[in-house]
Amino acid sequence: MDMRPIGVFDSGLGGLTAVRALWDILPEENLIYFGDTARVPYGGRSKETLLKYARQDVRFLRSFDLKAILIACGTVTATSLSTLQAENDLPIVGVVEPTCRRALLVTKTKKVGIIATLASIRSGAYEATLKRLDSEVEVIGKPCPLFVPLVENGRFRRGDVVIETMAREYLEPLKAQGVDTLILGCTHYPLLTEVIADVMGPDVTLVSAGEESAFELKRLLKAEGLRADENRSGTSEFYVSDQTEDFERIASVFLQEDLRQAARRIDIEQY
Amino acid sequence: MDMRPIGVFDSGLGGLTAVRALWDILPEENLIYFGDTARVPYGGRSKETLLKYARQDVRFLRSFDLKAILIACGTVTATSLSTLQAENDLPIVGVVEPTCRRALLVTKTKKVGIIATLASIRSGAYEATLKRLDSEVEVIGKPCPLFVPLVENGRFRRGDVVIETMAREYLEPLKAQGVDTLILGCTHYPLLTEVIADVMGPDVTLVSAGEESAFELKRLLKAEGLRADENRSGTSEFYVSDQTEDFERIASVFLQEDLRQAARRIDIEQY
Repeated sequence: MDMRPIGVFDSGLGGLTAVRALWDILPEENLIYFGDTARVPYGGRSKETLLKYARQDVRFLRSFDLKAILIACGTVTATSLSTLQAENDLPIVGVVEPTCRRALLVTKTKKVGIIATLASIRSGAYEATLKRLDSEVEVIGKPCPLFVPLVENGRFRRGDVVIETMAREYLEPLKAQGVDTLILGCTHYPLLTEVIADVMGPDVTLVSAGEESAFELKRLLKAEGLRADENRSGTSEFYVSDQTEDFERIASVFLQEDLRQAARRIDIEQY
Repeated sequence: MDMRPIGVFDSGLGGLTAVRALWDILPEENLIYFGDTARVPYGGRSKETLLKYARQDVRFLRSFDLKAILIACGTVTATSLSTLQAENDLPIVGVVEPTCRRALLVTKTKKVGIIATLASIRSGAYEATLKRLDSEVEVIGKPCPLFVPLVENGRFRRGDVVIETMAREYLEPLKAQGVDTLILGCTHYPLLTEVIADVMGPDVTLVSAGEESAFELKRLLKAEGLRADENRSGTSEFYVSDQTEDFERIASVFLQEDLRQAARRIDIEQY
């Protein structure tokens, strides 16, 4: 048994959808979450800027004695995972590979769609991973640059003409090309599940990045003998790099339950 | 005569609307533009983070021998102008006061609306400046947090249901309250002039931040004997903090003419 916490980070608060999944799948583990809210969004930035930010995020988390890190950010995973793994002597799990494995399990037509930020799609990481795991798969990627700002501004509900219009614009080409599986390659997107499902229809299976990576982390902790005592309830601590006002309210949306816990603010550029 | 360049900066490329105004109003001046594209958008960040970013932006610009600085960013002006002026021994012009003076010249009903980012509205800077200049003015402020990401993603044209829906939501309460003048308090917003005018109607005068500050800078240079030779054509150099790909194409939109000049990339966190 290993009672050390797991570090989780994202560009902002979208990664809390992965915390939600960890609470369900690994309720006994202690979590330290960092959201880089002073520099969100990551999705349109260059590979070099993203690697720099990701290294700082990991250095901050490693100021705690961690047993593993979950990168709850599609953009960082897609652009920086292998470098971060090579530079750090603890297990680091990203969202790309677990999500691709799941998508290949559920697709029947071997036509898989992937929606993510511009940086993630440009990196080609999801497509390369899917093709490495199954050379016959056909992959159709689509960047959705406005989904993160829209979700962060609360525009994610069914019946909102703005999000529904953007969803139709982004997704109808994927639907027209006949994908039967759609990877939500950004941890902000689970909040859009209903809106996305309305456009894609009942025959397309949605695969969510945060949830699959939580299952992957569970397998990894088990394999390496790193799990906490299963009879306990884990605790979570939250850190952000910008103002902590409104954190509880916004975090509650991503966590899908009332959070009564404040976040602490840190200066990420010190790391 | 003083041939040293003028420094101009913004969170991203929206400040290029002020460069457009400077080209028209002060065509003989040399300009050095910096857009902090690695950390855009500024509008939702805290006052402390904004001051830190603004100080770095000024330090980078002052690595050139400048005669003046124009802060082509409503958010930085609203939160950090007086501190930057106190810390620097050269003239620094912001967008708030010139815009407020203009609004007070054109309003007849003394009911003035102001739209800007969340940080600008929260700062209260526009409202405080308007009331200092005319204690009888009634000010109605409205944050429009999605306007910057929408403009940056090319969603600013008449007939676009997404921007038109957001414009109606943000602006109809201002219209209902009977403002006769509307300050566009963010340098991204001039691209939305048609969309905003369609909602506000012909009886509301729009006052644009970038243009008024260019006039203010002209007056200041003249008063202090700092103007360049009026018989020459000035040059402009462009610097950004993230990737320079697509710069010419996106800059051309804000500058309203074809730009055939690349931007150079710098690491703003070194400053």
